[in-house]
Amino acid sequence: MADSKKPLILITNDDGVYALGIKKLIEAIAPLGEAVVVAPDSPRSGMSSAITCVNPIRVSLLKEEEDLKIYACTGTPVDCVKIGIDRLLNRKPDLLVSGINHGSNAAVSVVYSGTVGAALEGCIIGIPSLAVSLTDHSPHADFSEAAKFGKSVAEKVLKEGLPKGICLNLNVPNIPEVRGLKVVSQTTGRWIKEFEEMQDPSGKSVYWLIGEFFNEEPDNANSDEWALTNGYAALVPLHVDMTAYNFIEKIRNWEK
Amino acid sequence: MADSKKPLILITNDDGVYALGIKKLIEAIAPLGEAVVVAPDSPRSGMSSAITCVNPIRVSLLKEEEDLKIYACTGTPVDCVKIGIDRLLNRKPDLLVSGINHGSNAAVSVVYSGTVGAALEGCIIGIPSLAVSLTDHSPHADFSEAAKFGKSVAEKVLKEGLPKGICLNLNVPNIPEVRGLKVVSQTTGRWIKEFEEMQDPSGKSVYWLIGEFFNEEPDNANSDEWALTNGYAALVPLHVDMTAYNFIEKIRNWEK
Repeated sequence: MADSKKPLILITNDDGVYALGIKKLIEAIAPLGEAVVVAPDSPRSGMSSAITCVNPIRVSLLKEEEDLKIYACTGTPVDCVKIGIDRLLNRKPDLLVSGINHGSNAAVSVVYSGTVGAALEGCIIGIPSLAVSLTDHSPHADFSEAAKFGKSVAEKVLKEGLPKGICLNLNVPNIPEVRGLKVVSQTTGRWIKEFEEMQDPSGKSVYWLIGEFFNEEPDNANSDEWALTNGYAALVPLHVDMTAYNFIEKIRNWEK
Repeated sequence: MADSKKPLILITNDDGVYALGIKKLIEAIAPLGEAVVVAPDSPRSGMSSAITCVNPIRVSLLKEEEDLKIYACTGTPVDCVKIGIDRLLNRKPDLLVSGINHGSNAAVSVVYSGTVGAALEGCIIGIPSLAVSLTDHSPHADFSEAAKFGKSVAEKVLKEGLPKGICLNLNVPNIPEVRGLKVVSQTTGRWIKEFEEMQDPSGKSVYWLIGEFFNEEPDNANSDEWALTNGYAALVPLHVDMTAYNFIEKIRNWEK
């Protein structure tokens, strides 16, 4: 490892190590310190916080330069974080950045996203962690604004840290000039009309996940979907403790 | 569909439709109404809230009886809930129950668990939802206490409902006589020593996920791990909005 006084930065994603989004993230973030990339060897979109329980995983070193190592891993995004921490790094990183995702991870997508799953995993382990996504699924999207905002937030996190149990979810709209950064909440909503039925060549039905997002609070100017729709990058602090504390006393009388 | 005045109950799990845990759950829960089971066709442990994005999924009807249908699905637990709601049921269920999981889903396991992922998905869709797990990974575990507590909580939920955005995570200890039910919070902790390295037959390294849970608050009598260790079933209310609201104002000055 190089100069240990530089911040150590773990980088991952869910679109895979060869995606343009992580390339642009590495270009923006790696110069902030010593970077180690551990990312899936192929796309793992929609993997949430999945872990590989019944099969072994493998890791390959793709690149080793001064202050930059890149590993491909056969596991999920969370596996990448876990094996990075447990096996590949010789000290705890000062920062984890996951992305830049090809496609929005705003609103309820935090639940399904492998990009966000990786940031939550960093948070569980105790690393200040940030997920960065661009609202454009195209493999050749323009990541320049997302990289700029991602770098800016990463610098803030390196400088100020994050409280235990809290990580950040940054989404950046797919427009040439983002109007600014808003700190907002996860928009309430859900996906609807989720499947398209087709027939396979033998005539049997198969179902493809499609769907559209139904925003239950389109007028909430303090929500991430509102910020994105109105040209702002949206930063949502997330916590890994999912306990609904306010509801505990409401069902206390269920105890027996 | 049979008598529509009976509650409609959607049942799923992550150990697969042929697991003993879901069989015992069906026996306990299905008599409370009209039950439709949509469960993975094989084990999907550790799938969290993963969704199947790039491949189609298939559904097979395994059994059709008065008030009980059982479908196997090639997707994840969340896919099972989504396709159940979107394609297989003719009305919104009154209750979703996921489990009984072979193994604990207490503490931070809520993040990785497909069983809990399915309950969170039901919650997102607006169905009162409950995950049930037994702290025993054995395929032939004794599910009688877990089924008893699961049924009791399910009856409460059918009667009283749950607020929007909140679902329940029930874990039951693997002991012959559970002392009672405690309403508690998700224990803070993380998994450590997570991988075992082995050589494959060609001599290349592979890594198996193992690990042990490190409890950061072993003395917190209001946490789920404490309840389980002390012989109680642990009921944790979870919310799907992961926003750390208290932290928003702390980073408001990051806006620009």
